[in-house]
Amino acid sequence: MKNALPDRGAGSRHRVVILGAGFAGLRVAKLLKKAPVDVVIVDRQNHHLFQPLLYQVATAGLAAPDIAAPIRRILRGNRNARVVYGEVTGLDPASQTVRMGEDELGYDTLVVATGATHSYFGHDEWAEYAPGLKTLGDAQRIRSHVLRAFESAERLSDPKDQAPWLRFVVVGAGPTGVELAGALAELARKILPRDFRRFDGSKTEVMLIEAGPRVLAPYTEELSASAQRQLEKLGVTVRTGSSVTNIDGNGVTLEGGEEIPARTVLWAAGIRASSVLEDLHAPLDRAGRVMVEPDLTVPGRPNVFVLGDAAHLEQDGSQVPGVAPAAMQMGKHAAKTIASRLRLKQGAQPAARPFRYRDKGSMATIGRASAVADLGKVKLKGWLAWMAWLVIHLMFLVGFRSKIVVLINWVWAYIGYRPAARVLPELADDGLARTETP
Amino acid sequence: MKNALPDRGAGSRHRVVILGAGFAGLRVAKLLKKAPVDVVIVDRQNHHLFQPLLYQVATAGLAAPDIAAPIRRILRGNRNARVVYGEVTGLDPASQTVRMGEDELGYDTLVVATGATHSYFGHDEWAEYAPGLKTLGDAQRIRSHVLRAFESAERLSDPKDQAPWLRFVVVGAGPTGVELAGALAELARKILPRDFRRFDGSKTEVMLIEAGPRVLAPYTEELSASAQRQLEKLGVTVRTGSSVTNIDGNGVTLEGGEEIPARTVLWAAGIRASSVLEDLHAPLDRAGRVMVEPDLTVPGRPNVFVLGDAAHLEQDGSQVPGVAPAAMQMGKHAAKTIASRLRLKQGAQPAARPFRYRDKGSMATIGRASAVADLGKVKLKGWLAWMAWLVIHLMFLVGFRSKIVVLINWVWAYIGYRPAARVLPELADDGLARTETP
Repeated sequence: MKNALPDRGAGSRHRVVILGAGFAGLRVAKLLKKAPVDVVIVDRQNHHLFQPLLYQVATAGLAAPDIAAPIRRILRGNRNARVVYGEVTGLDPASQTVRMGEDELGYDTLVVATGATHSYFGHDEWAEYAPGLKTLGDAQRIRSHVLRAFESAERLSDPKDQAPWLRFVVVGAGPTGVELAGALAELARKILPRDFRRFDGSKTEVMLIEAGPRVLAPYTEELSASAQRQLEKLGVTVRTGSSVTNIDGNGVTLEGGEEIPARTVLWAAGIRASSVLEDLHAPLDRAGRVMVEPDLTVPGRPNVFVLGDAAHLEQDGSQVPGVAPAAMQMGKHAAKTIASRLRLKQGAQPAARPFRYRDKGSMATIGRASAVADLGKVKLKGWLAWMAWLVIHLMFLVGFRSKIVVLINWVWAYIGYRPAARVLPELADDGLARTETP
Repeated sequence: MKNALPDRGAGSRHRVVILGAGFAGLRVAKLLKKAPVDVVIVDRQNHHLFQPLLYQVATAGLAAPDIAAPIRRILRGNRNARVVYGEVTGLDPASQTVRMGEDELGYDTLVVATGATHSYFGHDEWAEYAPGLKTLGDAQRIRSHVLRAFESAERLSDPKDQAPWLRFVVVGAGPTGVELAGALAELARKILPRDFRRFDGSKTEVMLIEAGPRVLAPYTEELSASAQRQLEKLGVTVRTGSSVTNIDGNGVTLEGGEEIPARTVLWAAGIRASSVLEDLHAPLDRAGRVMVEPDLTVPGRPNVFVLGDAAHLEQDGSQVPGVAPAAMQMGKHAAKTIASRLRLKQGAQPAARPFRYRDKGSMATIGRASAVADLGKVKLKGWLAWMAWLVIHLMFLVGFRSKIVVLINWVWAYIGYRPAARVLPELADDGLARTETP
């Protein structure tokens, strides 16, 4: 065997294997720094991603490295942690091993924090036409697609031909969809048209399609209504109560048969947990998340934790949301449980301390100086909500350098309406053909 | 025809078509802002690239958008300029047209500033194993390759297996090769090894191979010697007088048969001008550059200019170098010539004012606080040369925002040995296999 995963010598320490270096997994690794364990953290990316700002990479506001930090650097000071860059292909809870291709990695405690990807509700053929936004690669592809759409419109002289290139449809009006639609509206209606000669901002259209009755369904009705008003003020056409029945190269078809011709369709409607969770043989919810015990372990497997977007947990009658603060709190809980179990005498039965999510509020940004924030008793809208959003997101950004660079990019974009990352890495190999009508 | 290039109505103005928005082409477009002409500038990228810093994107020091600015934004204020994003497929000087796929673009004056790409001296099969550095895409691919090499070494336990992954060979010791080797040495020997557990900096090797007798051949012998000493201090193995006879997946073979096993080989040895120049039916030099008249026009075609890396011009017995200042000076000269011809009465014979390159000096950076600068009478080495290099490059960077962001990234990298852009966008599709020994 040419490859070698970290070896376990005789008499080695308790090994904690963490799958995924997102908010939950990374928190576990960091908090186990002083614990008498060997930590192995596995990720298919070399970087931790600050996902709440991913939509800004997709809309050319930030460069990809601005919101990513190398996992190895984050854990450089954790001498008991090893980072493995690679893909998990299977789990075997019976033999306590993780499979990575032909290699195996044994564990004493397993933490599964593999996050979620997009789900097309059985219509995987839509993926080609309506990309979702989960990784830096997704964001860069969406950015290229959007920038190319404007270039294509500029090459056409008939407004009828231009229209599908200048219409941007976002499916799903959760936080990601709302943020994408708002940022796209600013880009499409205010920023880019000034640089083109054959169309102006009034010819571009951003449409947000939602099957449910309102945008930002998890928020109060008042904040939902405010978010919709703020979106419309930016020029977004909001279509609630509209189900999508088809997506192809020509655009979107709605229930009832209405066709919306559009060359850019972005998917923000559904997520699905990683398929590797199926190997745990535990009850899953409809989105493939593990129905975890109150202490975040898998039923019948007290040494296997499932955290973050991979876990389904009900609390006070509602589901703990798939947001970064919940993931980080879960990571902290798991790390504490693991450490306290090791402190117990061997053979003693550890107490299964239940996890409790503390909701410190949620916020969604809509555009420049435009957002909604639900901080429990305090509800904010517009400029104040946006400032709160900005401060909190900067505070949480990993790494000092990123904060300053991101702040400068924002201030600069705010003053000058200049997105910092308006870069198409390469012309398509087929040259002009890429932007032509097929 | 679905696509439409800018149309020419009846009685339209003199049209200047510029191919390439590098330092030369962009300068022509900007300086013709007030001239009574229509300018059309064509590029296969949507951005102008600050090429002197490209090696920093390749070595994870800067993010791609830091050194790129959208062409449309740069020319937003030039109301007489149109930007066409697409690839030129041919020229026809007889009919005064430029071909772009099936479309044609007519011109009255043509400015060809299409730059250069790498040349493998007839060994195009080496391209697969030894990528060159000309575009943002090249830089991002090299960055991914280098970062993956370290990940691959970390997955192996036998130092014999690790060695080829930890050896980085740069072929060609001109300014690009020297800058790449220096930056790679810092990354490979000082920055990254701290984050890995299975090897340290002493196991990594950066080798700079040059067929000629010394590095930085265009510089004085004293500065060449200093550059080599500075490189060696950083840990670079410099091999001058060594010709490469083969490059494949296992590494590099030198004249005499010596084999250097290496998984990363970068090509900085030769460039070749764009093949579209052949359509001009003008004399070309060995690198495919047009032998231009002293006024930068094509012999027998006074309305066709060739500028920058696409042009070969002798001055005082030596060739005008392929550097940014020369390209910008050529652009200025062409713009002035075009504008002054238009001011002449129709029918009058324009004076063919010869171009004169003013050499303000040249500099190459080697690493942190390490460089050489030849400013005519003043020759600088080490820290002072590096400061001069930094100030001059920041001054020339296009766009205020880039300057601040790039400065912060540099200061941050300098203080903390932390490259800002250590990001692998995606794991290869085949997961682990990508980093395995084939």
